[in-house]
Amino acid sequence: MKTLKISEAVVRRLPLYLRYLNNLQIINVRTVSSQQLGEALDLNPAQIRKDLACFGEFGRKGIGYEVDYLIGKIKSILKLDQPINVVLIGAGHLGHAISNYTVYLKDNMKIVAILDNDPGKIGHITAGISIEPLDHLKEIVEARGIRVGIITVPAEAAQKVCDLLVDAGIHAILNFAPTNLRVPDDVRVHHTDFTMELHSLSYYL
Amino acid sequence: MKTLKISEAVVRRLPLYLRYLNNLQIINVRTVSSQQLGEALDLNPAQIRKDLACFGEFGRKGIGYEVDYLIGKIKSILKLDQPINVVLIGAGHLGHAISNYTVYLKDNMKIVAILDNDPGKIGHITAGISIEPLDHLKEIVEARGIRVGIITVPAEAAQKVCDLLVDAGIHAILNFAPTNLRVPDDVRVHHTDFTMELHSLSYYL
Repeated sequence: MKTLKISEAVVRRLPLYLRYLNNLQIINVRTVSSQQLGEALDLNPAQIRKDLACFGEFGRKGIGYEVDYLIGKIKSILKLDQPINVVLIGAGHLGHAISNYTVYLKDNMKIVAILDNDPGKIGHITAGISIEPLDHLKEIVEARGIRVGIITVPAEAAQKVCDLLVDAGIHAILNFAPTNLRVPDDVRVHHTDFTMELHSLSYYL
Repeated sequence: MKTLKISEAVVRRLPLYLRYLNNLQIINVRTVSSQQLGEALDLNPAQIRKDLACFGEFGRKGIGYEVDYLIGKIKSILKLDQPINVVLIGAGHLGHAISNYTVYLKDNMKIVAILDNDPGKIGHITAGISIEPLDHLKEIVEARGIRVGIITVPAEAAQKVCDLLVDAGIHAILNFAPTNLRVPDDVRVHHTDFTMELHSLSYYL
């Protein structure tokens, strides 16, 4: 088996395919064509065929892709076929919303710890999880095998929290704070800033 | 003055520049070079110069860009120099988080209405705004000159809410529900699905 290096653009599209395929699976659809995928996801079917061919899945002419098989394959590529423990830092409104939301996700990524530095919040239960003190981060990450961090603190605290995550051995961070983060080269940060989505949406008004 | 057609990629980067420039302005930095911008935003300085040249802003050699001027220019390109009223539909955890968050944004995009179809939520105050019934959407959009809609309802309700927004005359939608939406060609939808960010992050573990 060869190791594949997949482009960032493909890695960003795979979760989109996965989400749609999961929906098909729920309604018991067994096969799907690149044409159907393209229409549903507003992508070029040729692009989809090319993306999926990246990892040796070609589908069958006239039948298309087998939904179950493709889900398994994409999960394996994205390493979502194994449990991935996640820590969330910042138990404000956004932290609560995200924790509550992920509880309902049927996937292997699970928030297993919610941390905050406000003593008034410690011990409160969110999404079935008791909020713990931020200064226990390192022990918690180690004890629970946590590999991903989510930052939902205000912008001015984000870099400090990010440094703590890196120091605790986290290499993958999803940042909701509206600011850029400096990290070592071996740490990957993805940003989710909906105000930037709103701002770019405004252009099209 | 010529009308400019800016590529989608540039439109997506402009809010990133704007966010960083706003931070510079707060700490009274007057000028910035493409080099500094590139380092802070992890982008190629040549790309930044090219993006900014799109709208006739060239900066000055050895001095760089004037922060205030560039902020004004980008805001004007993104049409953020005018008030833009926003309606949010779905007063759950995520809706609350987003409403509370946007209150603190010093910008012209303002959530002026929060709607839900749960009678138990009507009249409750979130982020200083009283939650109103979803079936008043059309009148509210018209009366308050609302031009942007945010969808924070569950996936299974998102298409219906989207149709209502389109029917009410909204042409720009930010969708947080984890599902694709079908809209007419003259309606623009941006998606924010942090689970997809998490899933693509997983690949790099």
